[in-house]
Amino acid sequence: MSQAVELTIQSSRPGLMEITSEVIPIVMQSGLEVGLCTIFIRHTSASLTIQENADPTAARDLERWLNRLVPECDPLYQHTAEGPDDMPAHIKAALTATSLSIPIVAGRLTLGTWQGIYVWEHRRNPTDRHIVIHCG
Amino acid sequence: MSQAVELTIQSSRPGLMEITSEVIPIVMQSGLEVGLCTIFIRHTSASLTIQENADPTAARDLERWLNRLVPECDPLYQHTAEGPDDMPAHIKAALTATSLSIPIVAGRLTLGTWQGIYVWEHRRNPTDRHIVIHCG
Amino acid sequence: MSQAVELTIQSSRPGLMEITSEVIPIVMQSGLEVGLCTIFIRHTSASLTIQENADPTAARDLERWLNRLVPECDPLYQHTAEGPDDMPAHIKAALTATSLSIPIVAGRLTLGTWQGIYVWEHRRNPTDRHIVIHCG
Repeated sequence: MSQAVELTIQSSRPGLMEITSEVIPIVMQSGLEVGLCTIFIRHTSASLTIQENADPTAARDLERWLNRLVPECDPLYQHTAEGPDDMPAHIKAALTATSLSIPIVAGRLTLGTWQGIYVWEHRRNPTDRHIVIHCG
Repeated sequence: MSQAVELTIQSSRPGLMEITSEVIPIVMQSGLEVGLCTIFIRHTSASLTIQENADPTAARDLERWLNRLVPECDPLYQHTAEGPDDMPAHIKAALTATSLSIPIVAGRLTLGTWQGIYVWEHRRNPTDRHIVIHCG
Repeated sequence: MSQAVELTIQSSRPGLMEITSEVIPIVMQSGLEVGLCTIFIRHTSASLTIQENADPTAARDLERWLNRLVPECDPLYQHTAEGPDDMPAHIKAALTATSLSIPIVAGRLTLGTWQGIYVWEHRRNPTDRHIVIHCG
């Protein structure tokens, strides 16, 4: 009953991208009535978060707040060879989540009313992001 | 062997509320000798953390430190319609945990000696907080 | 098929210590083709993170950035009885991870090319750190 599916998300800009509607069919296809859905992102410059998906200003404020806390071109950085947005991306990833686990009850994710699952892209260049979704 | 139980916690003030003693009987009732206990909070303005439960000043300093890092009424916020404590609550939730997983060995959570499981309420108004505990 | 192994890591200095090569054989010994590997640290003054393991300056910048965000001897701290590095350690642990879950596919962790699993020691005195690795 243990299954894993890889999802590829094309990211085009820094910020939060909701993937709830991509995760739900994977949970349904697992056929599990009760179980656990774990979402894992295979990167260190993008991360995961569960946030409010009702008012888009909440996600935007969250992005802007973290951008201010972890600015580019901080003189502290020595890891600069991969561009000015790379080291901030690693720090932002460490402060948020690389894996998230959500129980499944009655065949559905137990997300709260306002909760959405997001990939948080921390880099500027468009790229493919690989996420593994395990249901078991 | 996969089970999920919803726990409702009445929160009356911002800060850390220990729920270890509510989680332990759910693990015992699961009957699992070896397994995984996952705790998931169904909200975006409250979160989870594992912290020291010996000296209460540790939890208090943690709350005060995060309150100072993420103050209310920051001019950056545009998401202000739900009150001055709402956007800081979302940010604090993103910086801490929405899900936690603890292995079960010999029928018990493998928490360390000083570890307690906490719900972290980030809003001021008393409310019910819903947590799902999966054992499998 | 649910198994848990305790790993003891001797930490000698604050900072990131990669444990990927200690986790891999435990996953292989589990015999699971598809499953979930959960890593849990039994402490509140050390934590876990997944970070880039290619260029060591990335881990070093991350450590230095968090040390600057959460300095010792902050006048806010009341929890000072266990030494000047204790309360910063609890805060750093709360901002990073106590548990991480990584799907297993084809008998292997689905870590990305640049991802390594790290124990993050936040205290100065050498000590043993206990980690439980569950595969199921």
